[in-house]
Amino acid sequence: MNIKEDWIQYIEFLQTRICTALEACDGKARFIEDKWQRAEGGGGKTRVISGGNVFEKGGVNTSVVFGNVSAAMKTQLKIDGGARWFACGLSLVLHPLNPFVPTVHCNYRMFELYNEKNELINRWFGGGTDLTPYYLFEEDARHFHQTYKNVCDEFDVSFYSTFKKNCDDYFVNTHRNNERRGIGGIFYDYQKPSEKKDINFWMNFSKACGDAFLPAYLPIVEKRKICSFTDKNKYWQEIRRGRYVEFNLIHDRGTLFGLKTNGRTESILMSLPPTVRFEYNYQPQKGSEEEKLMNACLHPKNWV
Amino acid sequence: MNIKEDWIQYIEFLQTRICTALEACDGKARFIEDKWQRAEGGGGKTRVISGGNVFEKGGVNTSVVFGNVSAAMKTQLKIDGGARWFACGLSLVLHPLNPFVPTVHCNYRMFELYNEKNELINRWFGGGTDLTPYYLFEEDARHFHQTYKNVCDEFDVSFYSTFKKNCDDYFVNTHRNNERRGIGGIFYDYQKPSEKKDINFWMNFSKACGDAFLPAYLPIVEKRKICSFTDKNKYWQEIRRGRYVEFNLIHDRGTLFGLKTNGRTESILMSLPPTVRFEYNYQPQKGSEEEKLMNACLHPKNWV
Repeated sequence: MNIKEDWIQYIEFLQTRICTALEACDGKARFIEDKWQRAEGGGGKTRVISGGNVFEKGGVNTSVVFGNVSAAMKTQLKIDGGARWFACGLSLVLHPLNPFVPTVHCNYRMFELYNEKNELINRWFGGGTDLTPYYLFEEDARHFHQTYKNVCDEFDVSFYSTFKKNCDDYFVNTHRNNERRGIGGIFYDYQKPSEKKDINFWMNFSKACGDAFLPAYLPIVEKRKICSFTDKNKYWQEIRRGRYVEFNLIHDRGTLFGLKTNGRTESILMSLPPTVRFEYNYQPQKGSEEEKLMNACLHPKNWV
Repeated sequence: MNIKEDWIQYIEFLQTRICTALEACDGKARFIEDKWQRAEGGGGKTRVISGGNVFEKGGVNTSVVFGNVSAAMKTQLKIDGGARWFACGLSLVLHPLNPFVPTVHCNYRMFELYNEKNELINRWFGGGTDLTPYYLFEEDARHFHQTYKNVCDEFDVSFYSTFKKNCDDYFVNTHRNNERRGIGGIFYDYQKPSEKKDINFWMNFSKACGDAFLPAYLPIVEKRKICSFTDKNKYWQEIRRGRYVEFNLIHDRGTLFGLKTNGRTESILMSLPPTVRFEYNYQPQKGSEEEKLMNACLHPKNWV
């Protein structure tokens, strides 16, 4: 089996494993699948869940897409050559009902570039997972980061600190005093095979990160989904979801690139939260749990 | 009184006239004023209303700002020279509680450009008003457009059709099959004095447009604010508000320019609706009033 087939098979099986585990955790809602095709080449499987006991809205999507390299792609993806491209990845966002359960996002993808003769000329991996809590439980933050640090350390002890910083530097609402979308995780991109780290190394690292999603996230959901919450907690969650919308629509390169290059709008915008509030100049009370969360987003810290 | 002072005085008085009329229409909520200053020069008066009988959230803002011409401004505002700039304008967005009352936006501004010696080298006016209903009442659409057509016709019979088309072409969610944000209105920009249309012409035209806001909008509010509505109507309003958020954060040049050049975030984002829903692949029922509204947004028509 070649690299491409290996990765596609991994991604599609990961989608099924994750959906199965999330349905079991939810206990009520089931994923609904929309298969779609892209005129320019390829397609995807969008699986969405809504109205669950645990998950108010979410999507676990995969796509296997290809086409000709366009001018927009050259700019956006920093490509300096190539005639045709291929990409396969999984992208997931979950918005829980309970404000004590954090929102999570992850994305793992492989990208290939070919010349006019359809010969492979470049290939790279990218991905990451990040957590967006509405209330800060430090033990949850530590568990989440520790899980990914363990994965990173198995491959290169320098990875975690680098990829953790990438994540903190990427998910930033620059228009809100550099407030982060959440408490981060890991993020890496343009990881190309080298002499010391060949294609199998990056393939295995990306698979290990993908495999870490369920052990990183599910124990937190199981612990917090039983917390009782008030209207005030829900209100705060909806205010913070507003920040999530702001980041995704104003700053997220993937979202904007997809929307501006004829991507499948509904699959891209499945990332948006189900109910959201925008209030003029909303400020959490001094010394409150809400302010504590906001401060953790304003000043990223080391959790492990 | 010079042109600049004349315009500032007009804009600030317009703000007060509009707020007074909206408070009277609402009957409960009052505007709260936040005065702010800008480190680079000037400041503004942000007046926000929320939790009213009629207006769930809204803002009527003015600003009088100036500074040095930056590289970002040259690109964004298509300026090809100048050392210093001045701008004064009013910007308003109102999000009514009742889904049968439309959301409205308007903005009227004057921009001046100076050389190194602080001599005026250029000046232009821009502005417009557009309506975003959740249910389509054709008589309301006609009243709104007729009011602005009457204003336009007093100045130049070619204006209305040009400025109406500008508006239809601007407020477009290109990522949603070119669905418009609403049913339009008028929009004009970069209107500079010429031999036939001098500075007084444009000043008077802009004032006439500003004066037309209340007669264009308030009769619609008065007629529809007493309609009773269901949870289903409110749900649809919140879905459509999602489209409003998408346009403002993904496409609106003014919003993005403000957020990316250190504008006052809270004043800029007062435009966002109070409560919003995002649902995967939401489709109104065939033949429903909801679908009728969506079709009016997909296919702009002539109302007068």
